[in-house]
Amino acid sequence: MEFDLIVRNGIIVTASEILQPGLDIGITDGKIACIGVSLPASAKTHIIDAEGAYVTPGGVDSHVHLAQRNAPTGDGWETGSRSAIAGGTTTIIAFASQQKSDISLYPVLEDYDKKAKDQSYADYGFHFILTNPTREILRDELPVMASEHGITSVKLYMTYEAMKLNDREVLNILFACKNLGMTTMIHAESHDMISMIIEGLERNKNTEPYFHAVARPRIAEDEASYRAISLAELADAPMLIVHMSSEVAVSHVREAQTRLLPIHAETCPHYLFLLSEEIKGKPHDHFSGAKHVCSPPLRHSPADLESLWQSVANGTFTTFSSDHAPSKYDHPGGKQLGMVDGIPRFTKIPNGLPGVETRVPLLFSRTPACLPAEKAKLSLPRFVQLTASNPAKLYGLGGRKGSIAPGFDADLVIWHPGNTGAVTISQGLMHHDIDYTPFEGIEVGNWPRYTILRGQVVWDESKGVVGSMGYGQYLKRGKGEVLTGKTGHLPRGMIEDERKYWL
Amino acid sequence: MEFDLIVRNGIIVTASEILQPGLDIGITDGKIACIGVSLPASAKTHIIDAEGAYVTPGGVDSHVHLAQRNAPTGDGWETGSRSAIAGGTTTIIAFASQQKSDISLYPVLEDYDKKAKDQSYADYGFHFILTNPTREILRDELPVMASEHGITSVKLYMTYEAMKLNDREVLNILFACKNLGMTTMIHAESHDMISMIIEGLERNKNTEPYFHAVARPRIAEDEASYRAISLAELADAPMLIVHMSSEVAVSHVREAQTRLLPIHAETCPHYLFLLSEEIKGKPHDHFSGAKHVCSPPLRHSPADLESLWQSVANGTFTTFSSDHAPSKYDHPGGKQLGMVDGIPRFTKIPNGLPGVETRVPLLFSRTPACLPAEKAKLSLPRFVQLTASNPAKLYGLGGRKGSIAPGFDADLVIWHPGNTGAVTISQGLMHHDIDYTPFEGIEVGNWPRYTILRGQVVWDESKGVVGSMGYGQYLKRGKGEVLTGKTGHLPRGMIEDERKYWL
Amino acid sequence: MEFDLIVRNGIIVTASEILQPGLDIGITDGKIACIGVSLPASAKTHIIDAEGAYVTPGGVDSHVHLAQRNAPTGDGWETGSRSAIAGGTTTIIAFASQQKSDISLYPVLEDYDKKAKDQSYADYGFHFILTNPTREILRDELPVMASEHGITSVKLYMTYEAMKLNDREVLNILFACKNLGMTTMIHAESHDMISMIIEGLERNKNTEPYFHAVARPRIAEDEASYRAISLAELADAPMLIVHMSSEVAVSHVREAQTRLLPIHAETCPHYLFLLSEEIKGKPHDHFSGAKHVCSPPLRHSPADLESLWQSVANGTFTTFSSDHAPSKYDHPGGKQLGMVDGIPRFTKIPNGLPGVETRVPLLFSRTPACLPAEKAKLSLPRFVQLTASNPAKLYGLGGRKGSIAPGFDADLVIWHPGNTGAVTISQGLMHHDIDYTPFEGIEVGNWPRYTILRGQVVWDESKGVVGSMGYGQYLKRGKGEVLTGKTGHLPRGMIEDERKYWL
Amino acid sequence: MEFDLIVRNGIIVTASEILQPGLDIGITDGKIACIGVSLPASAKTHIIDAEGAYVTPGGVDSHVHLAQRNAPTGDGWETGSRSAIAGGTTTIIAFASQQKSDISLYPVLEDYDKKAKDQSYADYGFHFILTNPTREILRDELPVMASEHGITSVKLYMTYEAMKLNDREVLNILFACKNLGMTTMIHAESHDMISMIIEGLERNKNTEPYFHAVARPRIAEDEASYRAISLAELADAPMLIVHMSSEVAVSHVREAQTRLLPIHAETCPHYLFLLSEEIKGKPHDHFSGAKHVCSPPLRHSPADLESLWQSVANGTFTTFSSDHAPSKYDHPGGKQLGMVDGIPRFTKIPNGLPGVETRVPLLFSRTPACLPAEKAKLSLPRFVQLTASNPAKLYGLGGRKGSIAPGFDADLVIWHPGNTGAVTISQGLMHHDIDYTPFEGIEVGNWPRYTILRGQVVWDESKGVVGSMGYGQYLKRGKGEVLTGKTGHLPRGMIEDERKYWL
Repeated sequence: MEFDLIVRNGIIVTASEILQPGLDIGITDGKIACIGVSLPASAKTHIIDAEGAYVTPGGVDSHVHLAQRNAPTGDGWETGSRSAIAGGTTTIIAFASQQKSDISLYPVLEDYDKKAKDQSYADYGFHFILTNPTREILRDELPVMASEHGITSVKLYMTYEAMKLNDREVLNILFACKNLGMTTMIHAESHDMISMIIEGLERNKNTEPYFHAVARPRIAEDEASYRAISLAELADAPMLIVHMSSEVAVSHVREAQTRLLPIHAETCPHYLFLLSEEIKGKPHDHFSGAKHVCSPPLRHSPADLESLWQSVANGTFTTFSSDHAPSKYDHPGGKQLGMVDGIPRFTKIPNGLPGVETRVPLLFSRTPACLPAEKAKLSLPRFVQLTASNPAKLYGLGGRKGSIAPGFDADLVIWHPGNTGAVTISQGLMHHDIDYTPFEGIEVGNWPRYTILRGQVVWDESKGVVGSMGYGQYLKRGKGEVLTGKTGHLPRGMIEDERKYWL
Repeated sequence: MEFDLIVRNGIIVTASEILQPGLDIGITDGKIACIGVSLPASAKTHIIDAEGAYVTPGGVDSHVHLAQRNAPTGDGWETGSRSAIAGGTTTIIAFASQQKSDISLYPVLEDYDKKAKDQSYADYGFHFILTNPTREILRDELPVMASEHGITSVKLYMTYEAMKLNDREVLNILFACKNLGMTTMIHAESHDMISMIIEGLERNKNTEPYFHAVARPRIAEDEASYRAISLAELADAPMLIVHMSSEVAVSHVREAQTRLLPIHAETCPHYLFLLSEEIKGKPHDHFSGAKHVCSPPLRHSPADLESLWQSVANGTFTTFSSDHAPSKYDHPGGKQLGMVDGIPRFTKIPNGLPGVETRVPLLFSRTPACLPAEKAKLSLPRFVQLTASNPAKLYGLGGRKGSIAPGFDADLVIWHPGNTGAVTISQGLMHHDIDYTPFEGIEVGNWPRYTILRGQVVWDESKGVVGSMGYGQYLKRGKGEVLTGKTGHLPRGMIEDERKYWL
Repeated sequence: MEFDLIVRNGIIVTASEILQPGLDIGITDGKIACIGVSLPASAKTHIIDAEGAYVTPGGVDSHVHLAQRNAPTGDGWETGSRSAIAGGTTTIIAFASQQKSDISLYPVLEDYDKKAKDQSYADYGFHFILTNPTREILRDELPVMASEHGITSVKLYMTYEAMKLNDREVLNILFACKNLGMTTMIHAESHDMISMIIEGLERNKNTEPYFHAVARPRIAEDEASYRAISLAELADAPMLIVHMSSEVAVSHVREAQTRLLPIHAETCPHYLFLLSEEIKGKPHDHFSGAKHVCSPPLRHSPADLESLWQSVANGTFTTFSSDHAPSKYDHPGGKQLGMVDGIPRFTKIPNGLPGVETRVPLLFSRTPACLPAEKAKLSLPRFVQLTASNPAKLYGLGGRKGSIAPGFDADLVIWHPGNTGAVTISQGLMHHDIDYTPFEGIEVGNWPRYTILRGQVVWDESKGVVGSMGYGQYLKRGKGEVLTGKTGHLPRGMIEDERKYWL
Repeated sequence: MEFDLIVRNGIIVTASEILQPGLDIGITDGKIACIGVSLPASAKTHIIDAEGAYVTPGGVDSHVHLAQRNAPTGDGWETGSRSAIAGGTTTIIAFASQQKSDISLYPVLEDYDKKAKDQSYADYGFHFILTNPTREILRDELPVMASEHGITSVKLYMTYEAMKLNDREVLNILFACKNLGMTTMIHAESHDMISMIIEGLERNKNTEPYFHAVARPRIAEDEASYRAISLAELADAPMLIVHMSSEVAVSHVREAQTRLLPIHAETCPHYLFLLSEEIKGKPHDHFSGAKHVCSPPLRHSPADLESLWQSVANGTFTTFSSDHAPSKYDHPGGKQLGMVDGIPRFTKIPNGLPGVETRVPLLFSRTPACLPAEKAKLSLPRFVQLTASNPAKLYGLGGRKGSIAPGFDADLVIWHPGNTGAVTISQGLMHHDIDYTPFEGIEVGNWPRYTILRGQVVWDESKGVVGSMGYGQYLKRGKGEVLTGKTGHLPRGMIEDERKYWL
């Protein structure tokens, strides 16, 4: 019972409880050893007084693009992970992205591993993006990736010319992953709908950034989401649909969850806080809307936002991730790629927004910690589920990340006590290597005072980033948990054991 | 007011009314000239006494495969159209089927035209099956086909290796057809789901006919139907989903119709009367199940039948067609293709069942004309809608075919008066050139006593077929009517005029 | 084949067809004898040239309050029926209303019969309003009313202190009516919700007419509609929910119809054309909003209108009635009852609007006869269903009223040929005995040129009302038809034959 | 850091986590002081070795009828609470039941308080059953009951002649409770449907126990549940629907939760484990089915069970309670009341089953602790939510009961380590004062080895009940939490601020 660190007098929030005020968290060897009343300190014990403030689990951001080959001006590991800890995120799961020409995942992993190694301020892991799911990769490599490298999740795209898989490939992956206990993430938009509209827009010379939103209507997400769920139902395999942005698509998830299909859903800060209006840019500089180009696009109406907040609160969304996938705006290799010979070409604008730093404070700002109860959009335990405990469990970090309990890594965020911590988001406050934030001007009620990673303070609001590059460790992840529904279902309309004939 | 023919003393059934008993139908020059009480006959007037029986419009079967290149042992025009009139169908819309290698539709039409010319006992027209929808065909040929040849509908496949189109091609066709007022029919099953299951079945050596039903589960139809509807919603174009067989898929149609999307649906006799049990064949001859191989397959449970009957009655189904697409069973070029070196291979069995002759009597048998009201599955006006007036309107034959009213072609079916007309369906009664009927042994309460086509008796139950080959005329069809919903909708989630940017 | 009257050269519209232009309707003894091409006239034949205009069935208005004891300033039979024929309605079904103190229906019928006898310009019948459904009335009197007096429908209220029945009474009536083949109409609003809100409004002194709309929120209709449908499901009895005004309530009907429950629904002109804004009255005369006080109230938003129009088009609504239930505005016994000692008291305002004259033209104005196809809200056959053929069938006048076919009464409306017939509705044009029309200022594209009742012209636009008081006949009605769904269902969750234990 | 008791080496399960094996729980003064690794014991510390077994929170049974006036042969506090702790339940919320003639709640409370005082083995509180909600009680007494006596919930009945309230009374209570932060529980069955069916059953002399199930069909629960939810939506007040038993009713709750209405739902063991077949009794002793008479009744089909298990897993149910409301079977004042002069009369059978002892083990038996994962019906955290943490929070015991965390009462259940603990439920094992258990013969995979209440072992499987009568304390409860949805909603279709006019 000798602690390296005691965080005293906090209000600990877990995924299911707001514990009584005044409890202490005792930390030894980077792990939480004890939670209790008046824990004893020894001479060597470091003390942090939370002063009655909320203490929440360090954020787990399970959708972050860093140092990806296709995004030359995005954040690398140093700046991206620094930005993360400055915003209360202690664990990042980024992507190791196969290209169509890669016939093995080993060099891909090696490549991405190298970029991250000794560069990260935050603990980290990888999802594989599969763009060429050969039989060999599915049969021979994925098992090794899961068991030896702790990579237990893959991401697929139903759209983007360079990435998209057809339904058969999606099924192949679902079956392969199911057998390995891996989770499949999927970007669900109808490629064919979008490509048709893009052709029309280009034919009509409607190529400013705003037309990116026109090119990817809600119905493209709606249809692809239904299709993705159907494929998962047939495969009886868990799936997470990433960055959901529209009501009908989410209603498909809700219906699937009601029937206990193992379908999970993610949304992102920009779909809850921003509208397509942003993509119109400034009155005399429409191209500045490029800063808000991402896919799916920001949606049109406040009713869209409201319906997503509803799904945040009612439990349909499993995770809340940043989809940090930025490009510099004022850089010829960044968003300016979309300005071709002085003519805006939305199809050339790199997709994605920065957000790894603002994610946790933005959602915290809509809890009763920052708003009167009747205006709050979600409870504090739900905040913990969405930002930390659910992504940890879903991606095989359960028992280690995402919660405040003995045995877990001592990853903590301590907030401002009282109501004095309001902060207006602005680029000047950011720690990323991007030249704008899409959330400029939005006020959040609190900003993390401390971010603690494995017992070490890595962000101190009064001093800035105090962690060190390379302190972040690579995380070998275990099998993910199915958080909604379960496998073992018979697809609707099948008769008992029908599947045994073809499995 | 001089009539060539008077049908006296019938109970005329229209799509909305059962008229009072005892009315007469006066016919001149093959058309209905007058409906009234006690019409005057002249010396030259032929009289048929309906003896108080029901008189219904001649059937319009809008889904019939005759003389298709890919079905060498199916019915040709002579036998297929003979079979039709023997069963109360006076109008057939068959298919002129493009092959992937056909880069123009003109030779396709010429080819199919030639086969039908002077061969048909029934009036007839063509839908085009598009398998290679080139820009030239859509832009240049379809308009000519519609305006000059009266071919105002096309059919697409989402499955079958040789036929299937991708979603983009479907969209292209929907847009092209919409502008021409053409109706798009679509076979909606997920090709990728099916091909994956087939691979598994073959790997496990499960290749008897029954596994055809296992290979095409309801979820494949469910997903593809939702996708098809979404594509139609985006294109704001009318669509008919052919041969629907499962509850969830139909629920998507119902939901679309509630929102006034222009979505129509068809079902077929076999999905209402038969179950997958049939495909198991005889105890010692499993391969005989090949007789019941069609796509989508017969479904598993009585609950499936019941849910489809519900949609027959509640108005969700627009048309009830035979999908007559037979192959001889006991013929090396027919169903026996599925027996390869003594081993059954369900993937080699030609798909399809004969049914053009039994369609109308089967449905009539479930009306109050043949059953006590509480057991009847649909009303007589609904029977008329499904078998005659709806397909006529939907496919541009409104005002001419499908109804009993002055101005319409005098295409009539006169039924047995009284309850003495029960018939047990058997191959011996059929007039097709196929060696079995899948409905063998099912009792229908009545069989047409007379079939009349343009004022000529072509089927007289006491004499058999009395029409003549070649009497059937080619029908130039006009634009189809949208029978449920309407075009002019904004897809859900779009904002006003958003489409103008890309249309 | 000698006709008293021939209507030549019309476009006849039935519930399922728009017949070819140029047909003639031959009429003998007040009935349609013949429909055909170039019918022969004799010397005594009167000819009306429709000049190519639409000819539709005479309207059947199945929801009209005339000479009701509780509405001293409303229309009586003379003025109400005169107003009806001037607007294209040839059949009225009004109410004979039991009061709680009436222990027998015989004197009620006698009383209402007397008021109507020799007073009506239109054919007419009665529904009974039951407010005290004693065992004797249900068991002994209703059968006589049905068989001898041809009264085959009853109406119930779930609200209004003086009228409301509890759920048990509703069930008793449903069972009694089911056995007699009678149709039950029901006013579905939650009395307890409304009475609670009214108390609150009065407590807060919010008593101007507009608060009538606040007092009866959509949820009151929603809940009561669900309850009514559940009661009908348990009783397995047909039901029509009258004057439906809100989306969720209608969605319950749609769901019930999908499952083939025998549930029908009615809406009225004011719910399709007017919003609650009207009830606010004029800026300096809020009380004038009393003119628009009816129950359920006009709803708040254009989205409400749109959702109802959707249900008009998709078939959910069975009938479209006026609910003509007016009171004079500027009369101490009329709407002014709601002004008590100079203080507005919305609870004292007699409920109801005049509308029997404007009903048919208002709906006709939204068909393709008056609007470009893409702006039209419903097809012409659907117009016929809603205004004429459906109410006729549902209330036991099938085969006699509501259609244009041999054997039917020659009740016809002939419209303006061409587009020259636009009329702006105004009180000055009305033939009722009420001092306003709530539809003042709305333009309709056409007004009936002729209304014909049993072969007699009763309205000639150029001359005005040319029928005579007392020409209207009392209609003994037969059993109604179930138009959507059917009886014979097992309520969801029951097992076979469970009901036999208690029926 | 000196502990009275340490529970060592357990697997602690919370509402959101299964913590790592081997943790210790340190308990001081009846409360959990610390959770951690290797907590230090002092000389006075008592140690319980959990041997690696699961440790779950002591059960909170929020629906228990004890010593109710209307149940003379049911359990009193001594036997009922003894039975509770023997089955792992440490907190009971029972009912203080107003009778229609009680015009004040004070004597009611006094009466029930007296019966419980010094009699209980378990901690306890009361809900009020309101049967006569006078203005005085709602306005004057409820606030005192909440603030001074800690009674923060009420229960209402929509059925039972002696208890039922009308919708207006329900609304009055909802508004009163909402303002006080009290939770309303409601028994939702349509009284009028049931009374009508009972009349029919009695008329037909169908009065054996089984007909109790026929008398209360699913549709009665379905309708009343929809109505209850609508009333809560109008009042914008939290509600819990008790003992839900049928699929459609639960679907209404799910839909309401999707829209964030503050609607909660409860189910009970018998609806998950038993079918109506049980009520048929033994072949030669049908009356023995009386043992299984409760309301709502057990349902008919395995599909009913399955749909409820689905709602257990998908989160729709908030609590899982026993509804312990037993009567002795073989006693003239118990179930034998239903045998009148040798004739069974189901309406006279006291409703209710014993179940307070079996509740927790039955549900635990369906978790992965007792079943292979693919057969398990719910996760362990969900088990904790349903049996302990959710009822604690909902009924104002949050922070004190229902969880394992520092600050909470040390109420714990320790299960059998390993798989050796299977037990077949039988009356011989029960500790209630009832002569049967309805779950006779059902095997549960584990039975509590220890039940600990505020740090004292009260049940030791090897010794039996070791707690003492009167050790249980009365619980003053605080305001309940809204666990699904939230208040502050505008009912659908209302416009902003419309309610201010009548609130």
